[in-house]
Amino acid sequence: MKLHELAREHNLLCTSAAILGWDQETYMPEHAAAYRADQVALLSSRAHELATSPAWAAALDEADSAASSPTALAELHEMRRRFDLSTKLPASLVAEETHTSTLAKHAWQQARQHNDFPRFAPHLTALVEISRKKAELWGYPEEPYDALLSSCERGATTAGIGRLFDSLSDPIATIAKQAVTHSRHHRVPLPAGPYPISVQQTLNEEIAASIGFDFLAGRIDTTAHPFCTSLGPSDIRLTTRYDENDFTSSLFGILHEAGHGLYEQGLPSGHPGMPASDAVSLGIHESQSRLWENSIGRSRAFWEKWYARAQELFPQLRQHPLPDFLTHLHRAEYDLIRVESDEATYDLHILLRFDIERRLFRKELCVADLPQAWNDTFERYFGMTPPTDSSGCLQDIHWSLGSFGYFPTYTLGNLNAAQLMRAFTSTPAHRAALDNANYTPLLTWLRENIHRHGAIHDPASLIEQATGTSPDFQHHLDNLRSRYTPA
Amino acid sequence: MKLHELAREHNLLCTSAAILGWDQETYMPEHAAAYRADQVALLSSRAHELATSPAWAAALDEADSAASSPTALAELHEMRRRFDLSTKLPASLVAEETHTSTLAKHAWQQARQHNDFPRFAPHLTALVEISRKKAELWGYPEEPYDALLSSCERGATTAGIGRLFDSLSDPIATIAKQAVTHSRHHRVPLPAGPYPISVQQTLNEEIAASIGFDFLAGRIDTTAHPFCTSLGPSDIRLTTRYDENDFTSSLFGILHEAGHGLYEQGLPSGHPGMPASDAVSLGIHESQSRLWENSIGRSRAFWEKWYARAQELFPQLRQHPLPDFLTHLHRAEYDLIRVESDEATYDLHILLRFDIERRLFRKELCVADLPQAWNDTFERYFGMTPPTDSSGCLQDIHWSLGSFGYFPTYTLGNLNAAQLMRAFTSTPAHRAALDNANYTPLLTWLRENIHRHGAIHDPASLIEQATGTSPDFQHHLDNLRSRYTPA
Repeated sequence: MKLHELAREHNLLCTSAAILGWDQETYMPEHAAAYRADQVALLSSRAHELATSPAWAAALDEADSAASSPTALAELHEMRRRFDLSTKLPASLVAEETHTSTLAKHAWQQARQHNDFPRFAPHLTALVEISRKKAELWGYPEEPYDALLSSCERGATTAGIGRLFDSLSDPIATIAKQAVTHSRHHRVPLPAGPYPISVQQTLNEEIAASIGFDFLAGRIDTTAHPFCTSLGPSDIRLTTRYDENDFTSSLFGILHEAGHGLYEQGLPSGHPGMPASDAVSLGIHESQSRLWENSIGRSRAFWEKWYARAQELFPQLRQHPLPDFLTHLHRAEYDLIRVESDEATYDLHILLRFDIERRLFRKELCVADLPQAWNDTFERYFGMTPPTDSSGCLQDIHWSLGSFGYFPTYTLGNLNAAQLMRAFTSTPAHRAALDNANYTPLLTWLRENIHRHGAIHDPASLIEQATGTSPDFQHHLDNLRSRYTPA
Repeated sequence: MKLHELAREHNLLCTSAAILGWDQETYMPEHAAAYRADQVALLSSRAHELATSPAWAAALDEADSAASSPTALAELHEMRRRFDLSTKLPASLVAEETHTSTLAKHAWQQARQHNDFPRFAPHLTALVEISRKKAELWGYPEEPYDALLSSCERGATTAGIGRLFDSLSDPIATIAKQAVTHSRHHRVPLPAGPYPISVQQTLNEEIAASIGFDFLAGRIDTTAHPFCTSLGPSDIRLTTRYDENDFTSSLFGILHEAGHGLYEQGLPSGHPGMPASDAVSLGIHESQSRLWENSIGRSRAFWEKWYARAQELFPQLRQHPLPDFLTHLHRAEYDLIRVESDEATYDLHILLRFDIERRLFRKELCVADLPQAWNDTFERYFGMTPPTDSSGCLQDIHWSLGSFGYFPTYTLGNLNAAQLMRAFTSTPAHRAALDNANYTPLLTWLRENIHRHGAIHDPASLIEQATGTSPDFQHHLDNLRSRYTPA
């Protein structure tokens, strides 16, 4: 079979597994969990077998000798990279990782629940060791953590992210501190609920549709944690969760996930499973979600358009003026928990995790010392110490899944989003469109400059092509300053 | 691999495909249809490959030589039968059937919409020819239609069903006529709607749970046509549709599908993909749905328990006495459309279809003459002639899918249900339980006598073991007479 036929079959298997995963989070009855795990595992292993098969290797070679255009060569280069990531790991190591992380996830849940880090520590040690082995098998330019980083974000290196985050560290901390201080003196709570869930759903759907999310090729459901998943080229599912006391919780979940969803809906659909039809990286994906969630969804212009509708739907907002609502949206405070954090303080959580992961993989830090290292770093950034490990180094699920090198992509997403918005707003017509809350030009521009390229180019090249400049974190700092540190 | 391991993998693939199918009918966005068809096709073909593989054949042989108990031998006999059904058809014929039925389904939809039988006729001719080829490859005792019948209902023969339906024909027609005549003079419509959908859902869930449907291992969703599907041993999904003017429409959909669902939830879960954990036949499956829908759901005792709750939920019922409601439930009228028909007239639709199919496969009838044959037979049973082929021989989807020999299982279900109920009510304690609308003993009895046996025994043997007598249609006639032809 030709490479694109194999890739299509691979995509059919992966998206089928994704449908099972979506159902698991949305509608699956409780007692179905054990068998569902086996169903997903079978489809995933069939997909993995295919993508590491001799047939795949032969098809890659055949395609290599036939490729001539730079685009075809770039696409094959990316396919080869993915093939290497899959095939360089022996099945025994993959099985060991799956087994270890299954136990680790359970131990982590227990440890977090009982604030008992030592219960999780041996599992984490094992997972770090496995990731170290993976790094050795994949290879790296300078240090093992490079391999883990670049498996999450193509082209990323420890040195590169390190320099970037070092430069960000002080200004972000300063902005956060000013924002939190300002916020303490300007508190306007949202009027009391209830904000009925069905009414929230109406508003969320109207807003998602208005920014371009296509409900003929997607839908919204309810889950414990919001996510976006692609179940096929024309089947993008968003989820959110509802707080009857604060309608913005579900809405910003939807704006974030719809950002991911617009990217998926904008990818070329003609080559399922090929890089041409695939998202390029986590850092680019996150740029799309953060852009719609923060750059757009927290902007004054957006709410100048939508607040009247919100007031219509939620009577308690009618006596609550827009500036007060915006003050609520732009509140900043230090939170122990990353996923509860606001735009102004979020990146600090990521800098901390990168710092810890880098030290772990450089063997400058051993797992047993992790809680202390976490708390020390937290104190440095946030001026407070987590009262428990559960609200400290045990808070995130990622490490229990053996996922290292993932966290930095969240901040890369913020930086990319800011740079894209800066480039987009370089023309007066685009600025006027945003001022009028007309987002059609923005989506068109993102389709043209990001979405339609699939995973052909490196993330950094893609950003450079789209914006005309190499990645530059100043735009993000500028945005944060102008929104969170009013003169 | 051992046979049970292969069977488990096969079941994982089939149930994964079933999850995709369920999603397609419930939540899938419109534009996802084309890719979804490819996803389902891939999983189905992977399942088919496995169940017809040399490995499967070798595992069957190995199991054969190891089997000693009568149960093990019976189970292997059934597996061999299924293996033969799959492997005796060459891939080219299977592909031809898939291709032909895809076109035929589309042509049927068009033909039905435009009352244009000739548009469908060549497709139907082709599908009959393919089924004839399948029958030749499978083999049969007396005539090709035997093979089609027994592929739907293990052990069924044309001669056997023919004798049965010949005996039923006159009494059923007589009962139906009396019922329809009686009903014409005793009409009490249901009070006007609306019966809000969310309130219908509350009642349906309470009733489904009360008869034993386990919502930790199943759920209810909304579809255009009600169905029950098994997505795993502990994942049974029911669906129904809602009519705001008549809450009994969705409720009887749920009672029917919950009957299927209780059977699936009662199958032994320990051997996924093996006959021990599988439903035995369509005729037994349908006995479970008809039993709960008709024997229980249309009984006076059931409504003596539930009508007060319905009145509580639907205020318009409060001035509407129970006897009037029961008259509405027990109304009988001739309907052109099978799926709209009531309990008293339903079997006539099946007798007609069996008669037509048998003649088609005996070459006593050619496809071109089918509309006339349909109308003549309909006139004979119902005393009226369908005004259009759309409401006549084009009404059902089955033939467009190449499904012949399926219809008789609906009436077998009715007969089996009646015989099971007769056996269950042979003890005073059981009769008392039904009189008190206490269905726990009934479900326990069905679990013990039907569900737990999986597909080990032939349907006829299973009925005989459960009831102590060989299949006997008199019970069904007795039930219809006592309910629909009051003295």
